[in-house]
Amino acid sequence: GSVSSAPKLITTHTKMADEVTVQKARFSDRVRIRSILGRPDGGAGLAGQKVRISGWVKTGREQGKGAFAFLEVNDGSCPANLQVMVDASVSDLSKLVATGTCVTVDGCLKIPPEGKGTKQKVELSVVEVIDVGTVDTATYPIPKTKLTLERLREFPHLRSRTNSISAIARIRHALAIATHTFFDEEGFLYIQTPIITTSDCEGAGEMFQVTTLISHTEKLERDLIENPPPTEADVEAARLIVKARGEAVAHLKSAKASKETITASVAELNEAKASLSRTEERSKLKPGLPKLDGKIDYTQDFFGRQAFLTVSGQLQVETYACGLSDVYTFGPTFRAENSHTSRHLAEFWMVEPELAFADLEDDMNCAEAYVRYMCKWLLEKRYDDMELMAKNFDKGCIDRLKLVASTPFGRLTYTKAIELLEEAVGKGKEFVNPVEWGIDLASEHERYLTEVVFQKPLIVYNYPKGIKAFYMRLNDDGKTVAAMDVLVPKVGELIGGSQREERIDVIMERIEEMGLPVEPYEWYLDLRRYGTAKHSGFGLGFERMVLFATGMDNIRDVIPFPRYPGRADL
Amino acid sequence: GSVSSAPKLITTHTKMADEVTVQKARFSDRVRIRSILGRPDGGAGLAGQKVRISGWVKTGREQGKGAFAFLEVNDGSCPANLQVMVDASVSDLSKLVATGTCVTVDGCLKIPPEGKGTKQKVELSVVEVIDVGTVDTATYPIPKTKLTLERLREFPHLRSRTNSISAIARIRHALAIATHTFFDEEGFLYIQTPIITTSDCEGAGEMFQVTTLISHTEKLERDLIENPPPTEADVEAARLIVKARGEAVAHLKSAKASKETITASVAELNEAKASLSRTEERSKLKPGLPKLDGKIDYTQDFFGRQAFLTVSGQLQVETYACGLSDVYTFGPTFRAENSHTSRHLAEFWMVEPELAFADLEDDMNCAEAYVRYMCKWLLEKRYDDMELMAKNFDKGCIDRLKLVASTPFGRLTYTKAIELLEEAVGKGKEFVNPVEWGIDLASEHERYLTEVVFQKPLIVYNYPKGIKAFYMRLNDDGKTVAAMDVLVPKVGELIGGSQREERIDVIMERIEEMGLPVEPYEWYLDLRRYGTAKHSGFGLGFERMVLFATGMDNIRDVIPFPRYPGRADL
Repeated sequence: GSVSSAPKLITTHTKMADEVTVQKARFSDRVRIRSILGRPDGGAGLAGQKVRISGWVKTGREQGKGAFAFLEVNDGSCPANLQVMVDASVSDLSKLVATGTCVTVDGCLKIPPEGKGTKQKVELSVVEVIDVGTVDTATYPIPKTKLTLERLREFPHLRSRTNSISAIARIRHALAIATHTFFDEEGFLYIQTPIITTSDCEGAGEMFQVTTLISHTEKLERDLIENPPPTEADVEAARLIVKARGEAVAHLKSAKASKETITASVAELNEAKASLSRTEERSKLKPGLPKLDGKIDYTQDFFGRQAFLTVSGQLQVETYACGLSDVYTFGPTFRAENSHTSRHLAEFWMVEPELAFADLEDDMNCAEAYVRYMCKWLLEKRYDDMELMAKNFDKGCIDRLKLVASTPFGRLTYTKAIELLEEAVGKGKEFVNPVEWGIDLASEHERYLTEVVFQKPLIVYNYPKGIKAFYMRLNDDGKTVAAMDVLVPKVGELIGGSQREERIDVIMERIEEMGLPVEPYEWYLDLRRYGTAKHSGFGLGFERMVLFATGMDNIRDVIPFPRYPGRADL
Repeated sequence: GSVSSAPKLITTHTKMADEVTVQKARFSDRVRIRSILGRPDGGAGLAGQKVRISGWVKTGREQGKGAFAFLEVNDGSCPANLQVMVDASVSDLSKLVATGTCVTVDGCLKIPPEGKGTKQKVELSVVEVIDVGTVDTATYPIPKTKLTLERLREFPHLRSRTNSISAIARIRHALAIATHTFFDEEGFLYIQTPIITTSDCEGAGEMFQVTTLISHTEKLERDLIENPPPTEADVEAARLIVKARGEAVAHLKSAKASKETITASVAELNEAKASLSRTEERSKLKPGLPKLDGKIDYTQDFFGRQAFLTVSGQLQVETYACGLSDVYTFGPTFRAENSHTSRHLAEFWMVEPELAFADLEDDMNCAEAYVRYMCKWLLEKRYDDMELMAKNFDKGCIDRLKLVASTPFGRLTYTKAIELLEEAVGKGKEFVNPVEWGIDLASEHERYLTEVVFQKPLIVYNYPKGIKAFYMRLNDDGKTVAAMDVLVPKVGELIGGSQREERIDVIMERIEEMGLPVEPYEWYLDLRRYGTAKHSGFGLGFERMVLFATGMDNIRDVIPFPRYPGRADL
């Protein structure tokens, strides 16, 4: 029922300095549990306050032979539960105690009695139960017993109610807000690059196609079954009618028939011609995708050409950097690759800043500042969630954040990195992938460098041009490009970036050298033809950052609705 | 060339209170023009400072018979240009003056001489030209002469260099950051709902299909042309070989041949069988999409089922609201509708908050607070850009923002809105769409109410259930639902929202009443089955908000890369 006429229990603003206040959620009658338990005093200072709280029961138990019940209630605002005490005189306790039950209750905050073994500084003594959303424990898929993360993936619509997935969601939120705050504070503009694209960001990977052709084809095929197309005989019959009516007109004309008669006859002829034309048109309809010269006719697709889901917003965001200077994009990107690993998704989010008037060193400075900013932000804003991750999944995750927040990143050239790896091999270290100048560093190499050799984040730069994209700026040595990768413990490559080739002649040469067609990149080359500017940028895989922060192992657990081969629930 | 070893010209921090300081961009050697001209004194207090600036020449002219040149330089950080004076002794002026030229220059800030008619409080006298990106004026598509917005759409990669599109980009950025800041401050979590979906948000519109089937089919068809599939005769021949080898084995066995001979013969038989099986398999390959029982076989598609681009994240974000309480999504959404209007895009961005433990009134409070917050934010952070919009496009846009920021929204029921419209009709007002209780309000009705009757933003609520979605909460009258629309001057409907139906029996009835299938919504219904919670939410069309703020008329000009029928550039 409506509670809008109920007396407001909470004082939100007060002028008396010594009065305790509790902050009500602005768009609800309830108080968030975080507003109580998240205080430095754990909520103890609020004892005596009347509040309405809402949330889901994590665990509930009747005690004192059914005289009262204790509920651990969580509302998702923080990892901690509020302990809620309900007397049997207030409500039917049996409806409240099942895990997953949703309750809204009014009550009074109290200091729990000493020696009860509870760590809570405050608990709620219920005065009235306002609302209950019950649960049938026999069928509820997320019971009190802990499910594995893998099993939880079967219930993407309910798993946010678990401690682990809700903590990850809050950490992910914090990282996203840190991202926008960092770039806004540094004067970057958020540019929403397109999701549907007709460009290919060279070499980034397999693309999903976006189309309305299939649904149109299915509709046509249904229609052809219901109304079969005219046969050749139907067309011939329509042709004969036209011929006969034409002859009739000719006959009437030569017979000098009246104007009205001829006009009427001509009208009949025209009607027959129109009918023939329609019949011929429909007789050409064929099941299957529309074709032209043996190929699919994309002029009939929604955009008049073949369209895909973006694999990166970089090339497009560069167009805005070359006009607005400092920009970034933060959006979903897609790979149609048949990867079943714990590190790949078909749909994932990328942060891609692009800096005009910045060289590779500026780019590295920006990447380092951004990653360290996010780590500091998490330590400051979501320490409680980090503690939960450290307790349940990865002991070292808080120390890792602290290390990154406080330590300048190591920086070394690719050539130096190869030397170090070769040295390690010389001392007996074994890698699956052989080490020599010119190889793309494998994950095992990257993690060895960052976890074993340096034991901190690293930036490796100036890679061989042969393993990098055409748009990366050629160094003066003619064999390396101004590319950089940020490597971090736990996940390896977190960021890839480069200074972009701004010289039109050099980039044209690189495109030719790599055997790429020029035409699709004409718009990109225009940025170099007209008022070209030194610029640099990088891409951060957002889920990788969440993995790094949380210490989780499987990327499917750090995005709300994971998409991978064979799976796109909801 | 590299400038990293050049002496740093700028003091970024100083302890002397009376010393002027200029803020260098953190990841570049340059100073943003906004850091100079955006000061309260217009930069005058920086006179005497040496700075490096970079940007694109808006207009340039040689003067004094080629003795010096004046350049108006813009770097995208603000709408204002910095006036830059270059002496012929410093550089070849002819390379600098063309519109679109990119320059990086070191110079000294000076107060311009009195009476020069300039409004600038400061100008830059160049000491050294560091870098130039030239322009061939004969081919540059964005010349000094003003192009229409329509013509600019032909150059999506260059149009961010114009005053209008860059101002819109900054305003759009500000609105996006205001969005995240507002919801973060209010305790909402940003949830990234899926872009690729296998669900349909009922009634939202036509969907784009996401698939890898077409590319696989194209690959197969190319392969079938290069290596034609086996004919029936080929299969028969393979069968005969199996038969012959089978007989050979039987013959050798009955002839009591040696073990080795028989083993070799059996091996030959097995080889023939394998070859037959491969031949039969390949003979079944057909051009066209894979079919099963006459329908497209989506088990062979990437996700093992038909997948689409999302039309709304609402249903998915509700799953997180029912665990984390207050959440929002801000992401791209898609409609495959053949709309060629100035108000529709195939790809656009939506902000969709979802509030647990909130009823329709809370929902309206949130929507109003959010819209007013954005308006205040713009007035505070991007007043210079708003002035540009007011000057070039819509005189009233600043007053409109001020009105919304300062005035509580009107609120009235749908029934009252119909009464007011009927009254207007009674007094002679003519609408294209007839007015009666039960109709969906047309844009002309909405704009009449907000622009003429109330002259301020309005919230209309409690709509007839017949015109609204199944998930909206049925009111006690049994004929209206707890839905609300926010209407604003200039664009009409800006927000649509509702309290969600949390009662499992009522929502099941509504689904049946509307003739919808239940199966696809089972996961959504689970939220009502297990610990159901009162909750509400709304959706704001982000481009509509940018239209409202900027006063622009065409939605294609307020998104960086517009997608609509026949068009998906870049």
